[in-house]
Amino acid sequence: MQPFILDDRLARDSESILKLGLCDLRLARDSRWPWLILVPQRPAVSEVFDLTPLDQAMLTFEQVTVGTVLKKVTGADKINIAAIGNIVRQLHVHVVARVENDPNWPGPIWGFGQSVPYEEKAFEAMKHRILEAFQ
Amino acid sequence: MQPFILDDRLARDSESILKLGLCDLRLARDSRWPWLILVPQRPAVSEVFDLTPLDQAMLTFEQVTVGTVLKKVTGADKINIAAIGNIVRQLHVHVVARVENDPNWPGPIWGFGQSVPYEEKAFEAMKHRILEAFQ
Repeated sequence: MQPFILDDRLARDSESILKLGLCDLRLARDSRWPWLILVPQRPAVSEVFDLTPLDQAMLTFEQVTVGTVLKKVTGADKINIAAIGNIVRQLHVHVVARVENDPNWPGPIWGFGQSVPYEEKAFEAMKHRILEAFQ
Repeated sequence: MQPFILDDRLARDSESILKLGLCDLRLARDSRWPWLILVPQRPAVSEVFDLTPLDQAMLTFEQVTVGTVLKKVTGADKINIAAIGNIVRQLHVHVVARVENDPNWPGPIWGFGQSVPYEEKAFEAMKHRILEAFQ
């Protein structure tokens, strides 16, 4: 069986914070918005419908769990969930907390401006708030 | 029980082409890209995690079905699937066929430019191609 290999750009732009049953849960290195990325740990999958039905169900469960956690942690006005992948073809699902005064509200975050790196302490703080909310 | 009432903007910007088990499947009135919208027929739901677990599973099944159909009909390079809802808060899931020379590739379709209405014949043709592919 082909191994799962994380896409280079996903590796560069985000950091793994938790391994779930199916997905690697990653926090994007962009402080403009709390932005999580779920990457199903399956080789050669680009579309949700390339996954097996069981994996599709797992992905839904993990999206819902992560969305609920992110809502709780941030009190966001809206959680945006999206599988786009026009640039990075490896299947990955964005789960993003949006608030009404964020830098591109109500527009989408993808393709907007430049990422603003976290300071290390702020990144660690966000990571810990998220991980605590899983408990 | 509160009745399901379709949001006015969704009603204006798209047309119902099929009722699935959970969702009203709608074709967006924008010829720039083949763009379907799934609206779970449930009252007062804004986030995927507001749905019951059974409805979440149904939504996943319907997204996957519709994504597969749209890929087959269009031969798209990538299917984009997203629940955003920053403007229209009624839960709805976009399923969009993207090709590498479309008007905003590889950027997202949301918030980009103005919609370009179909001519009536072209809208009907797209609708029929999609409905046929469900069979």
